[in-house]
Amino acid sequence: MVDKALDRFMTKEEALPPVVHKAMRYSVFAGGKRLRPVLCLAAAEITGGKPARVLPTACALEVIHTYSLVHDDLPAMDDDDLRRGRPTNHRVFGEGVAILAGDGLLTYGFELMAKNARVAGVRAERVVEAIGTVARAVGSQGMVGGQAVDLESEGRGVALNGSRAKVLDYIHRHKTGALITASLSVGALLSGASPKAQRALERYGDQIGLAFQIADDVLDIVGNKALLGKSGSDAENQKLTYPAVYGLEESQRRARRAVDEAKRLLKPFGRRADLLVALADYIITREN
Amino acid sequence: MVDKALDRFMTKEEALPPVVHKAMRYSVFAGGKRLRPVLCLAAAEITGGKPARVLPTACALEVIHTYSLVHDDLPAMDDDDLRRGRPTNHRVFGEGVAILAGDGLLTYGFELMAKNARVAGVRAERVVEAIGTVARAVGSQGMVGGQAVDLESEGRGVALNGSRAKVLDYIHRHKTGALITASLSVGALLSGASPKAQRALERYGDQIGLAFQIADDVLDIVGNKALLGKSGSDAENQKLTYPAVYGLEESQRRARRAVDEAKRLLKPFGRRADLLVALADYIITREN
Repeated sequence: MVDKALDRFMTKEEALPPVVHKAMRYSVFAGGKRLRPVLCLAAAEITGGKPARVLPTACALEVIHTYSLVHDDLPAMDDDDLRRGRPTNHRVFGEGVAILAGDGLLTYGFELMAKNARVAGVRAERVVEAIGTVARAVGSQGMVGGQAVDLESEGRGVALNGSRAKVLDYIHRHKTGALITASLSVGALLSGASPKAQRALERYGDQIGLAFQIADDVLDIVGNKALLGKSGSDAENQKLTYPAVYGLEESQRRARRAVDEAKRLLKPFGRRADLLVALADYIITREN
Repeated sequence: MVDKALDRFMTKEEALPPVVHKAMRYSVFAGGKRLRPVLCLAAAEITGGKPARVLPTACALEVIHTYSLVHDDLPAMDDDDLRRGRPTNHRVFGEGVAILAGDGLLTYGFELMAKNARVAGVRAERVVEAIGTVARAVGSQGMVGGQAVDLESEGRGVALNGSRAKVLDYIHRHKTGALITASLSVGALLSGASPKAQRALERYGDQIGLAFQIADDVLDIVGNKALLGKSGSDAENQKLTYPAVYGLEESQRRARRAVDEAKRLLKPFGRRADLLVALADYIITREN
């Protein structure tokens, strides 16, 4: 559903100027798991809304997530050559076009969210609130801020002021966690969920966001490189990771605990939460 | 009014993480002319609205304009060391932080626009429409697209398919013109202007956008380098410019003609258009 909608929403490769639309599509259709759209759709459904009603916003979340990957991979940032087993955007299109493709994706994310106001039954007030929520989640005090601290701390061992554990927590809550939580938040919001249901889903998002990042760090050590499709490793880059701070076993324990807490938060939703329960389990059992 | 509001809206330098907020403020408060916010406020006023009602959006336009300057100056793009007589963002903060500061500014632009829905008397439907308008103007088929074609054409003399005049026209209508036109459009839109008045202001925007870009190209040749505060020149970079395509005199004639047409479009507004008339004249008489 998400892949089809993305194909429909994303500007065609032939549109002027083709180079930037090719680059945008290249990274949007590069084997992403579509976790954020699925969380948004599930949050809409579980709170009594119709998933189709939030589809533009669900796709916008993936588009914005993709922008962050394109920019994070740039030479001036993490300098990655491979992502999901394919050359990164700037390796294919050059650095200038990759920066512009990222800019175009971020911008298009907000355009798509604005389009959601044209879906019957969705109130403009809620769309504006959702746009504000996502902007805060990915802005300088959200995702961009997390990446900035990550960039500063890289290769330093002990980073910035404060303990390594605190810095690690800051990075991941902002760099990964904020958009995951926002995905659930706007899915519920656009469906007119009660503040209580919305809050429960946001807390579920905080927990699976944490589990997701720990699992990523753990996979970087124990995972199958071919499945991961990455070049280099966090250890080589002296990255601040959960295993580096807490050790492998304690990291796995923390991920498990976060997933348990996430599932506990879904209890009030009963059987309607089955998909979100399964997603929480998937996050720490996945292999890439 | 705009400078004060920007200072109030922009996140403080001390906010976490400071490096990215310092970089964002550095470029927002670097001597910009605030043309886009002024156009937005004037469009609101001339169509019977209160300028204060569109202030968050007016500031958002400047913030988004600033993001485009920060990214355009990057080494992978135009590779500029100076802007308005000061070192460019990446020369001060490094390339990675400059990319992130640009990303943060673009994102914050949309956050600010969403905030405009909280101003009394502004309808959420119009805010959503304004967000869509600005996103289209600065996205891959707007400003980002114009910069992509500019990047491709640079140093090539004759560029892409089609004549140099057509490519030049494409670049500037997208790279500069689109956001100038959108500034007028959303100012009118948020104030509840009639479609006819909104359309007249957009056409005015198209004309002054053209005049603005020609004047920029002309200033690059005949202007005072100290006032311009630029390093290098378009000619050195083999840029496709109006003087390069049409010659200096014909370029100046075209700029004057665009300003005359812009002023003609304001006739129905009578004396209320005085500020926009003066702005049109300013655009081709300014020295930086």
